[in-house]
Amino acid sequence: MTELAATSSRLTIDYRNATAGAVGEEHGVSPAMLAEVASKVREEHARIAAEHAAGGQRWMNLPDDLALADEIAAFAEQARSRYQDYLLIGIGGSSLGAIATIAALADPYRNLLPDDRRGGPRFFVLDNPDPEKVRATLEVVDLEHTLVNVVTKSGQTAETMANFLVARQALEAVVGKQRASEQIVATTDPKEGLLRKLADEEGYRTFPVPPGVDGRQTVLSAVGMLPAALCGVDIHGLLRGAAAMRERCRGDDVLTNPAYLLAAIAVLADTRLGKSMLVTMPYADALYGVADWFRQLWAESLGKRLSVSGEEVFAGQTPIKALGAIDQHSQIQLYTEGPNDKLIALVAVERCRARVEIGGTPAGTPELAYLQGAELGQLLDRERLATAWALTEARRPNLTIAAPEIDAAVVGELFFLHQLQTVMAGALYGVNPFGQPGVEAGKNATYALMGREGYEGLRDDLLAEPEGGSHFTLVPV
Amino acid sequence: MTELAATSSRLTIDYRNATAGAVGEEHGVSPAMLAEVASKVREEHARIAAEHAAGGQRWMNLPDDLALADEIAAFAEQARSRYQDYLLIGIGGSSLGAIATIAALADPYRNLLPDDRRGGPRFFVLDNPDPEKVRATLEVVDLEHTLVNVVTKSGQTAETMANFLVARQALEAVVGKQRASEQIVATTDPKEGLLRKLADEEGYRTFPVPPGVDGRQTVLSAVGMLPAALCGVDIHGLLRGAAAMRERCRGDDVLTNPAYLLAAIAVLADTRLGKSMLVTMPYADALYGVADWFRQLWAESLGKRLSVSGEEVFAGQTPIKALGAIDQHSQIQLYTEGPNDKLIALVAVERCRARVEIGGTPAGTPELAYLQGAELGQLLDRERLATAWALTEARRPNLTIAAPEIDAAVVGELFFLHQLQTVMAGALYGVNPFGQPGVEAGKNATYALMGREGYEGLRDDLLAEPEGGSHFTLVPV
Repeated sequence: MTELAATSSRLTIDYRNATAGAVGEEHGVSPAMLAEVASKVREEHARIAAEHAAGGQRWMNLPDDLALADEIAAFAEQARSRYQDYLLIGIGGSSLGAIATIAALADPYRNLLPDDRRGGPRFFVLDNPDPEKVRATLEVVDLEHTLVNVVTKSGQTAETMANFLVARQALEAVVGKQRASEQIVATTDPKEGLLRKLADEEGYRTFPVPPGVDGRQTVLSAVGMLPAALCGVDIHGLLRGAAAMRERCRGDDVLTNPAYLLAAIAVLADTRLGKSMLVTMPYADALYGVADWFRQLWAESLGKRLSVSGEEVFAGQTPIKALGAIDQHSQIQLYTEGPNDKLIALVAVERCRARVEIGGTPAGTPELAYLQGAELGQLLDRERLATAWALTEARRPNLTIAAPEIDAAVVGELFFLHQLQTVMAGALYGVNPFGQPGVEAGKNATYALMGREGYEGLRDDLLAEPEGGSHFTLVPV
Repeated sequence: MTELAATSSRLTIDYRNATAGAVGEEHGVSPAMLAEVASKVREEHARIAAEHAAGGQRWMNLPDDLALADEIAAFAEQARSRYQDYLLIGIGGSSLGAIATIAALADPYRNLLPDDRRGGPRFFVLDNPDPEKVRATLEVVDLEHTLVNVVTKSGQTAETMANFLVARQALEAVVGKQRASEQIVATTDPKEGLLRKLADEEGYRTFPVPPGVDGRQTVLSAVGMLPAALCGVDIHGLLRGAAAMRERCRGDDVLTNPAYLLAAIAVLADTRLGKSMLVTMPYADALYGVADWFRQLWAESLGKRLSVSGEEVFAGQTPIKALGAIDQHSQIQLYTEGPNDKLIALVAVERCRARVEIGGTPAGTPELAYLQGAELGQLLDRERLATAWALTEARRPNLTIAAPEIDAAVVGELFFLHQLQTVMAGALYGVNPFGQPGVEAGKNATYALMGREGYEGLRDDLLAEPEGGSHFTLVPV
């Protein structure tokens, strides 16, 4: 079994621009606020550690399953030479982590590269049950040489099962039922559920969705690692980075545990300073997917109804993904001159994986002389600095998470950091960060509208004409 | 010159779920509020019409420039058979409209299709000056057969000019200086600016960025239409749809002019009901780019500082892009159980361009029987209905913009609708929706940090160590 070489966390966090000293008492976190929250953080740390010791908080253990990582790596190595295309079918937590990992660590044009430069199958995702996208995808992949990976813990997810049934039928039409079963891999509950049952009946190869872990916490399980490995990502590096961040987050001090620090600043900014939005704005195309993954994690974990002294309270800060420097030309006008209702987390990358020098600045345009000989990564990073400064001047709290470069370990660090940050934020809000009770109503209504057995009563309610007209006809304006 | 066949607007809007009748007085727009705002809308309509008559609001005229559309279509027809690849270099308003149009109207896997099915060059964008992405792009395109289109009105945009200089040098290295000049098309100011000067000197073919129009309003000019035409989009259809929506928006009545209705509901929701965020959530992958385009338009136009009775006020609602049904598995938990601080605009598509039936539901899984024989578009649309219902039950105001299908005219309608909506929203907020004064500080700071001549004083200020430490070193936590 692979041993993980020891590695140290390499992320740094600079939160000075989120402090009262930088943006004023009205908008910044003060030392007094942090001191106040410190004891709550210590208590909650103890509770989380106790839960973990008692078998809870199982997502924390995912970096330790090296046997699984070895199994995935071995499977992927074979599959990478066997398959031309890889089709991931999953939605939400069953695809966002994989998309983020691959976007961060593979060539952005991976699907366009010739076979010998790509190293493994092309990568396609069916997440939405959008017939236009599904049709186009099934037309573009080479089904005869496609590995289909369906990911759902329960096998009940309507979008995933619908897309899977469509893909499976298309696959069977091309390669026949027997070979289709050999080309399908199911990532699902190891024991229970519809997909587990189907996989056992049809003889699919399976990988486990770890029990006791929410979908949005599965990026470091087979759910995220199998796709990553198939696209050539160093999954052991991912786990090593996650483990390094876990090691760094052992302490209970809000000022030195980076996950707790980020949680405390965000929750204080929301609950005490009116920053109802948390913008994550990496200055690197490759990290936009991580911001999108975090957007699910933060929203679904913290957006919760709770009861405080008998009163209904709605908690949660709205996560927003942005991309530097592009969104300087889209959102920064609003962020600096609109309402002061956001905490902005910039993500910096110190060394890019490519150096591109600007040359050939035309003579006769002195206005462009400053670009001559400059390097694009330097320009991008100075744009980030300039934005941090401009936000601070406008008294908009912001902080910077800096990575030395983008590699598997750094991405693993980010995943662990944000997951622990989210668990602590849940504790500070007083909400349960696990589960998503608020999506049940819509899910049931979909079943009812689709005529699923057992939902007839709800269907009748939905289709009854309410006063003022049905919800379900469009009034042309 | 092409005559535009008469066409009628086909979008419909259902705003009942955003009314007090549906979600309660605390969260919904009441008839009284709409009646109150109606006279202001009438006044502002008269002002806008007068400005237009006097030569202002020039973005409204873009659908009429059929001579330009013909010229672009003719150029594109030639270029489509000549070039293998098309590289658009532009950021913000110089690329978002083109990306949105092409995502809506071309095959989602266009770049992967064989030449004979693609109909025109592959499409690449350099927006961010991210060296990793730029390097990968320049490696993947076939520079010998690439049309490079640089888009900036002034030629001062740092990111665009940096990326252009890099691409130009790479192109010259492959095809030489003379042929490079023939492969470059500049979309820029017809008379002024650095890029105009360079284009004239080097003999680039040019297309105009229309004077008197902000970057974010140029989607229906050469800025958006040239890329669209190169990717096979029916640009005359786009203009026809925009003109149809313009025709429909001639009236000054808030209840029957759809742009004014959307503006009024959004601004009332923000200023009177605490809905500081406006989510646009199409249920169609193809329209996600339009939501992203609108995100720039709304943020940059309305996120403004203004002075009301001598007091500084920060206006603007934060636009958020979401995608149905994917974000039901990411954001809907927050939208239904988190703070009631959002107005959610769902976008429905009545007929998809593909029909995909679900078949092969396994015997022995009655839980999936409801999917057998169903069609994906139907599932997706019922998810939207279910979400609208669940949001309404949770008293979250929402509305639905419905398109009969996605075609060029519908996309043109959406562009015009949202632009007029934004101009009226600016009027209701009392802000100037044009210009983006808030981005100057960051832009200047970038110049200063890059050592541009004339910015030495700011550079010294920036690099001076402020009390409490510089903004520009990272303190490891």
